Amino acid sequence: MEGVGVDHLAHERKKAEFDVEEMKVVWAGSRHDYELSDRIARLVASDPAFRKDNRATLSRKELFKNTLRKAAHAWKRIAELRLSEEEAKELRFYVDEPAFTDLHWGMFIPAIKGQGTDEQQQKWLPLAYKMQIIGCYAQTELGHGSNVQGLETTATFDPQTDEFVIHSPTLTSSKWWPGGLGKVSTHAVVYARLIVNGKDHGVNGFIVQLRSLDDHMPLPGITVGDIGMKFGSGAYNTMDNGVLRFDNVRIPRDQMLMRVLQVTREGKCVQSDVPRQLIYGTMVYVRQTIVEDASYALSKAVCIATRYSAVRRQFGSQAGGSETQVIDYKTQQSRLFPLLASAYAFRFVGEWLTLLYEDVTKRLAANDFSTLPEAHACTAGLKSLTTSITADGIEECRKLCGGHGYLHASGLPELFAVYIPACTYEGDNVVLLLQVARFLMKTVAQLPSGKKPVGTTAYLGRVQYLLECKSDVQNADDWLKPAVVLEAFEARAARMCVARAQALSKFSNPEEGFAELSADLAEASVAHCQLIVVSKFIEKVQQDIPGNGVKKQLEILCYIYALHILHKHLGDFLSTACITPKQASLANDQLRSLYSKVRPNAIALVDSFNYTDHFLGSILGRYDGNVYPKLYEEAWKDPLNDSVVPDGYHEYIRPILKQQLRNSRL
Amino acid sequence: MEGVGVDHLAHERKKAEFDVEEMKVVWAGSRHDYELSDRIARLVASDPAFRKDNRATLSRKELFKNTLRKAAHAWKRIAELRLSEEEAKELRFYVDEPAFTDLHWGMFIPAIKGQGTDEQQQKWLPLAYKMQIIGCYAQTELGHGSNVQGLETTATFDPQTDEFVIHSPTLTSSKWWPGGLGKVSTHAVVYARLIVNGKDHGVNGFIVQLRSLDDHMPLPGITVGDIGMKFGSGAYNTMDNGVLRFDNVRIPRDQMLMRVLQVTREGKCVQSDVPRQLIYGTMVYVRQTIVEDASYALSKAVCIATRYSAVRRQFGSQAGGSETQVIDYKTQQSRLFPLLASAYAFRFVGEWLTLLYEDVTKRLAANDFSTLPEAHACTAGLKSLTTSITADGIEECRKLCGGHGYLHASGLPELFAVYIPACTYEGDNVVLLLQVARFLMKTVAQLPSGKKPVGTTAYLGRVQYLLECKSDVQNADDWLKPAVVLEAFEARAARMCVARAQALSKFSNPEEGFAELSADLAEASVAHCQLIVVSKFIEKVQQDIPGNGVKKQLEILCYIYALHILHKHLGDFLSTACITPKQASLANDQLRSLYSKVRPNAIALVDSFNYTDHFLGSILGRYDGNVYPKLYEEAWKDPLNDSVVPDGYHEYIRPILKQQLRNSRL
Ligand SMILES: Cc1cc2nc3c(=O)[nH]c(=O)nc-3n(C[C@H](O)[C@H](O)[C@H](O)COP(=O)(O)OP(=O)(O)OC[C@H]3O[C@@H](n4cnc5c(N)ncnc54)[C@H](O)[C@@H]3O)c2cc1C
Ligand SMILES: Cc1cc2nc3c(=O)[nH]c(=O)nc-3n(C[C@H](O)[C@H](O)[C@H](O)COP(=O)(O)OP(=O)(O)OC[C@H]3O[C@@H](n4cnc5c(N)ncnc54)[C@H](O)[C@@H]3O)c2cc1C
Ligand SMILES: [Ca+2]
Repeated sequence: MEGVGVDHLAHERKKAEFDVEEMKVVWAGSRHDYELSDRIARLVASDPAFRKDNRATLSRKELFKNTLRKAAHAWKRIAELRLSEEEAKELRFYVDEPAFTDLHWGMFIPAIKGQGTDEQQQKWLPLAYKMQIIGCYAQTELGHGSNVQGLETTATFDPQTDEFVIHSPTLTSSKWWPGGLGKVSTHAVVYARLIVNGKDHGVNGFIVQLRSLDDHMPLPGITVGDIGMKFGSGAYNTMDNGVLRFDNVRIPRDQMLMRVLQVTREGKCVQSDVPRQLIYGTMVYVRQTIVEDASYALSKAVCIATRYSAVRRQFGSQAGGSETQVIDYKTQQSRLFPLLASAYAFRFVGEWLTLLYEDVTKRLAANDFSTLPEAHACTAGLKSLTTSITADGIEECRKLCGGHGYLHASGLPELFAVYIPACTYEGDNVVLLLQVARFLMKTVAQLPSGKKPVGTTAYLGRVQYLLECKSDVQNADDWLKPAVVLEAFEARAARMCVARAQALSKFSNPEEGFAELSADLAEASVAHCQLIVVSKFIEKVQQDIPGNGVKKQLEILCYIYALHILHKHLGDFLSTACITPKQASLANDQLRSLYSKVRPNAIALVDSFNYTDHFLGSILGRYDGNVYPKLYEEAWKDPLNDSVVPDGYHEYIRPILKQQLRNSRL
Repeated sequence: MEGVGVDHLAHERKKAEFDVEEMKVVWAGSRHDYELSDRIARLVASDPAFRKDNRATLSRKELFKNTLRKAAHAWKRIAELRLSEEEAKELRFYVDEPAFTDLHWGMFIPAIKGQGTDEQQQKWLPLAYKMQIIGCYAQTELGHGSNVQGLETTATFDPQTDEFVIHSPTLTSSKWWPGGLGKVSTHAVVYARLIVNGKDHGVNGFIVQLRSLDDHMPLPGITVGDIGMKFGSGAYNTMDNGVLRFDNVRIPRDQMLMRVLQVTREGKCVQSDVPRQLIYGTMVYVRQTIVEDASYALSKAVCIATRYSAVRRQFGSQAGGSETQVIDYKTQQSRLFPLLASAYAFRFVGEWLTLLYEDVTKRLAANDFSTLPEAHACTAGLKSLTTSITADGIEECRKLCGGHGYLHASGLPELFAVYIPACTYEGDNVVLLLQVARFLMKTVAQLPSGKKPVGTTAYLGRVQYLLECKSDVQNADDWLKPAVVLEAFEARAARMCVARAQALSKFSNPEEGFAELSADLAEASVAHCQLIVVSKFIEKVQQDIPGNGVKKQLEILCYIYALHILHKHLGDFLSTACITPKQASLANDQLRSLYSKVRPNAIALVDSFNYTDHFLGSILGRYDGNVYPKLYEEAWKDPLNDSVVPDGYHEYIRPILKQQLRNSRL
């Protein structure tokens, strides 16, 4: 695949018991998606303008300018090659560097689409599509994040001039965090409290121009800048997350996004007939893409750690032979293979979420809101679960690489630094779990009334059975039966939900009860979300899957995914008596045996992600396994090695050695 | 404490139910230690030469030079102020920046002390103490880390010239990682295979001069440089971790460290009467300091997250009042307070380890090696446990700060990046757990022979009782009885050890069994180590502790520590039937109530660490809680804000906006 030279992992690739090319198609989603991503990934990888191995040594200014350069180059290539929307998106994905374009395409345009009237869309979208304006999404403030209803920025209607006056009344009302805001965006969708006739109508979106289209200077009344360095080197520092203050900035009335709520010329607030629930549709969409991204980020980390674990040898040499590959240690397997399985699991649940989103969209168009709360809770929960596991999983992959994982050249430090905010943005993961818990408690509370739970909560409709059932497992192989595994996970989630609902009912004030028990409630949400992932993985492997041995490998990964969770959350399963300690021990035996089965296929399973060395950005994860010479080569490129004797020797080292500092002691 | 101005956390400080000044003494270890650290911390904080808030924006070269400058300044101040050894060490600690001096004082000198003969010590130590030479510790190689016996560098005795020839036979034998090696050290203790008369005598240490004392140029045959960027910005990039290759470099015979093994003029290898076990003494010492450092790092993170959680408000405002402090959310408490308790727990177990080390040293002097294996296993296990929890805990603290935790200015990104290698160096944490497991299995295997387990394994002597006992807990308050908690932890650890030993005995080949079950064995080690921490915390709170309310707070933290582990590892406790699900649920109720008790004392409990704002290095963790104005101020200092219109606008942004790139499409 990559270049020429020796393939140090060839012996590993020979061990594979399945058709790797077919697995690539499964991972990509379809043959079309596979060919598309393969083509665009190579296009990016082969273009020197997109190199990214130098990010760590660039200063903040150089780094940022470099990102601007890449964005312009990408835009140019998209035009030159006449790429379709789909191809352009894929290209931005493989450029693999946070940039203002993410927010322009991913938040600014969708906000106008979702919240703008038809006229507003007709006016603004063509400008945005052609990038004649560049936009960002300015919601969060210095003092206000998760609680959007608490935002302080005001948009006061002035009937005299038919304008809104956008204002930052306090320091804490400064907009803070929006990506692309600090240095690039000409426009923003700004969220502010709508004040009409002295009355506060809550938070709404407004299109506000920030900078002159002539010379890029901030418009009068606008103070804007970058909020400074973030986690790590390279990573998210390519992005100009910004701060923004308004000193009574005036915008025309028609720049309030009025799809749902309108302000008339006379200053009347009129609710349109478009239902408010529409915004949940957008959230379902955005969170589905985050789940997809989780599978990409985790699979990158797993790919690096798996390949390096096959290259790295440590201990166990017999009679001068080579040492044991660390991937052969059961501790290494028990840390690595569940993450490999999770990457696949998240990929498939993400794929299923796209179907869910299509379904939601269709229903919304038909004014059917019945499944929306469930779909919303489901995506909120899966966003939380998959991003948390991915963030921790990347760091675990780094540890799996021992000392060398700590080198920037391993790719893992930057992957971690760039990934972790996914646990915070688009909903703090804990806040999201509590939302899921609210939905679950409501669902349980409504069971007696006969209301049938839908979609991913349908199992709660069988709660009587699930409270009483006993697992049939008698030997380790029973844990390879889909129905057995599914029932254990359903019983656990159902029993945890019911137990929490009962505990809540003991409080006279339900809100107090919810607050007091919130940590336990969040655990029930996790159990529910894990059940979703397990059940979607099982559904996937029950489909027809072509390719020699492909389905077999996916089954193995599916059971690893389920049984490792069972082991990790054993307390849940045992305290609710869903399984016995003996059955738990059999599950653990089965898990060990599954690790042995996946072992010979491990390299091929990460090859199936079809990542180029450019995209991986890791010397440890190189396709050809030629790690040591390349690490050695790379070291000498560090600026510190520009001179043999370091800058500072004469001022600071020599005086110590020559006792010129200690003389003052005498 | 810090400066003037308003104290935004004054209302929190008023809530404290204990004497903070007395708690500071407890945390420091003694009044002497408190006064010492307080004085030196202020000395460093008030010296502008030691500022560290600019690390993230310095280029690698500037950063490194800056560290050299600080090291020289520190050395100068130590001389000017005639600081004692103890004070000098404290000063380096509060300068709080990885530097070559860490390895010189922490590894090079101890290696010579531990492995050098009396004559060697007399020759080299005075030079090192005065820093007329600067040394590092060169063990790890590009291809060899954990398995020290696998090192490839050779030291071949040449009887003709009475020298050793140090050589790097392969690329993978290049020394790789040693701190201080890349650019600074004049000398190194190099570990190499001793070859005498063609026979390999295993790995030994050698003092090798690397650079000229005249002009700092590498000596002939030596290739040396920096290995490049590591995780994060600032952080460990202040250190010149290095690469080193030898091309037949000759050193005099008397530069082999010969305390244990000697090579005579004639080329005979003679074992001295100094027992090999001595090296374990050094390992006990080094790992004890790592446990101590874990408590410092974790307490820093907890201090930042706790203060900010009291400043940060989100949701729950009633009728225009201010929102709820996020520290009042039970989910926040259930994530934060166990880490607060862990910081104290690690502090006390670290304190106890210093006593253990004193005991070991005394016994070694008296040729009593009986407790050494137990002491060694104990420190290995505690190093693994405390560093793993601390690494994860820092990241959890960052997440607890929401979006702002992701800013470099929060201090948490750099704290994480600089801390995490502690999980890898001085023994990979998983490899260490497996060593502990070996010791535990041996201990269990020897029980039938009547051999009494000592020290931290003494409880295994009561294994019969522990296999049968049943927990007496009947209500939540029973979980506040030391004996009850201790018995549950002892029973869990004992039962896990015995179960693993039984599983092992089913294998005909014990090594195969150990390999196959290693993941489960590592879990038994964790259970054992957690028991040690719990028992030492309980011992601590059973002592006389002066100060109003101090003991009470420590008791609360002690039970939080124990019960949160019980909750997290519930599967262990239930599968071994140490407690019932009902008792587990009572423990959880108790835990929630303990969180409420610690809540009003939380700020005072982190104030008790007595950290200056300089040492904390975090705007979110500021003593005065004046977070928002300072974040705002800080943002404008980023180099990107040097100009309003960013560098790159004309080349890369304007052409996009003006459609000059898309023209090529037509
Ligand atoms: C890299 C990055 C990019 C971003 N990009 C944008 C952008 O483009 N546009 C934009 O508008 N914003 C952006 N943001 C901001 C982001 O959306 C917010 O940071 C996020 O919503 C979290 O809110 P917060 O920071 O206020 O966290 P907080 O809510 O303050 O969280 C702090 C702690 O409080 C806890 N907490 C809060 N509320 C509750 C509750 N009710 N119950 C229990 N616990 C609670 C949380 O769990 C957390 O532990 C970005 C942030 C980052 C880090
Ligand atoms: C910041 C930093 C500073 C350092 N400073 C120094 C220094 O000053 N001097 C010096 O000499 N060295 C130094 N080192 C090197 C350090 O000591 C090694 O990195 C460390 O010993 C781990 O070894 P490794 O890198 O070979 O990891 P590996 O052993 O290769 O670990 C890779 C993986 O294999 C697993 N593994 C390895 N062996 C086994 C086994 N037997 N059973 C099960 N699993 C196994 C590990 O758990 C890990 O997951 C430093 C390293 C770092 C990161
Ligand atoms: Ca894709």
